[in-house]
Amino acid sequence: MPEPVVLHTADRMRECVREWRASGQSVALVPTMGNLHAGHLSLAGLARSEADRVVATIFVNPTQFGAGEDFEAYPRTLDEDLAMLSAAGTVDAVFVPEMSEIYPFGAGEAVRVSMPALSRELCGASRPGHFDGVASVVCRLLNVATPDVLVLGLKDYQQLILVERMVADLGIGVRVVSGPTMREPDGLAISSRNRYLTDDERSRAPALYAALNKVVVALRDGAGDYRALQQAAEDELRGAGFEPDYVEVRCAADLARPNGRQPPDELVVLAAVLLGKARLIDNLHVRGAEPARIQLRRSENS
Amino acid sequence: MPEPVVLHTADRMRECVREWRASGQSVALVPTMGNLHAGHLSLAGLARSEADRVVATIFVNPTQFGAGEDFEAYPRTLDEDLAMLSAAGTVDAVFVPEMSEIYPFGAGEAVRVSMPALSRELCGASRPGHFDGVASVVCRLLNVATPDVLVLGLKDYQQLILVERMVADLGIGVRVVSGPTMREPDGLAISSRNRYLTDDERSRAPALYAALNKVVVALRDGAGDYRALQQAAEDELRGAGFEPDYVEVRCAADLARPNGRQPPDELVVLAAVLLGKARLIDNLHVRGAEPARIQLRRSENS
Repeated sequence: MPEPVVLHTADRMRECVREWRASGQSVALVPTMGNLHAGHLSLAGLARSEADRVVATIFVNPTQFGAGEDFEAYPRTLDEDLAMLSAAGTVDAVFVPEMSEIYPFGAGEAVRVSMPALSRELCGASRPGHFDGVASVVCRLLNVATPDVLVLGLKDYQQLILVERMVADLGIGVRVVSGPTMREPDGLAISSRNRYLTDDERSRAPALYAALNKVVVALRDGAGDYRALQQAAEDELRGAGFEPDYVEVRCAADLARPNGRQPPDELVVLAAVLLGKARLIDNLHVRGAEPARIQLRRSENS
Repeated sequence: MPEPVVLHTADRMRECVREWRASGQSVALVPTMGNLHAGHLSLAGLARSEADRVVATIFVNPTQFGAGEDFEAYPRTLDEDLAMLSAAGTVDAVFVPEMSEIYPFGAGEAVRVSMPALSRELCGASRPGHFDGVASVVCRLLNVATPDVLVLGLKDYQQLILVERMVADLGIGVRVVSGPTMREPDGLAISSRNRYLTDDERSRAPALYAALNKVVVALRDGAGDYRALQQAAEDELRGAGFEPDYVEVRCAADLARPNGRQPPDELVVLAAVLLGKARLIDNLHVRGAEPARIQLRRSENS
């Protein structure tokens, strides 16, 4: 496969997709903020299997960062990113827009996509406006690239559910496909923000995954007191040096609060924690988290 | 031309457009809230000249009505509307969606398009959320029908400017085309809300157009004190039995407040008034309002 073509303007992106469509080819989009890692590459590989052509986008979106968050510090590693995509050979085009291509009227006075109540829960509770910002940029990328398939990672699970909601509610003609969370050997979910961790923090970080696994195991074993499970997990995380934002058991389909009548395999456990300068998130579906016991044991031994 | 096909679901609408596209035909969309009149028919005729296929939509959009506004009372005249479109022969399909096709998660918890500051000025000042509601439904209609051309009327000028802004800012791949305001012989802009007027109110209604014309004439004659012009027009309207909401001179291109250095022909005069139960709006571009003097005289004589 030849080198992916790098496109910097919305017009060029549209033109590129128009040419593919004219020859009857389908298109998959993988939106990223760059600083690519195995998680992104896995999504690009998934995209490859879902459409004839794959577009990755690299854009650090200001509207999804709150005041005091890490917009300025967010790692920008375009050369490495392009080399990685080139080596992977799964991507036909990389869309790397300037700010003015995405927010032609400025990010401050931009038309925004305003998401419903779920956007203010979980991560949204401590990151007000975050998911409106995510929706605002994803909506624009979908309008510019008009893909048949949108590929998102399960690691940002609330983002996935909310983008699916946006697509369904706004009637956007795209199919959303999700790819699994990639993990380090010790269980830590791979994330661009892991690079904010000191060595010491990095060695403690897998306790997040371990704590989620413990909740999953308890749910499988029939535990039904979600509050107690959440509290125990938060306490454990606090003991391990994290500052927990939340640990929550939710319905996997729509992130509604479970009423206790859901079978465990319809649940998902989500958490966000602060560890040093890093805000880490992770989640595990009760169904599909196999082999949770083994992973838990491994994490505890690590 | 055969009868227009009437489509009730988003899926059928998509399918219809897909078939047209497969045979290389372009599509124009004319969104309406029904209760069609000469203004809508004029837009459908314009659409006909802009694309191979024309879709009109009829949907009374709840999210653009505020509390206490006329959502319930808004005239719904589907049979007459379809007969009118059929007779005009300019439309290939009429999309008449149920509420759940446009707001599958309900109108209250809907993903909204949130518009910038201009949406809270002029009509937006007394109709909070109105233009977010307009943007929210137009965005959905564009996603479902994916037209090449969107046709809107100049009568709702702030709406036109804001929808153009949404299209440009969200990167929606559609061309916006606008058609002129249709008027009764006495100058009153044709509107579905004119039917709220009593006979007496109807006879006084053309004074709105006359007042706008007077401002246009003054601007052409070099008047530069916009505040004084606006105040005089409001006083005149009040004297004629209207309750003026606003009369404003703005830049035609983007509805910014003029700084006094714009040549008159880059200006537009906009007004909204209450007359009995009806909220009437109208506007005149200084350029293109010809023959303003004649029209003014005629209105004064009527």
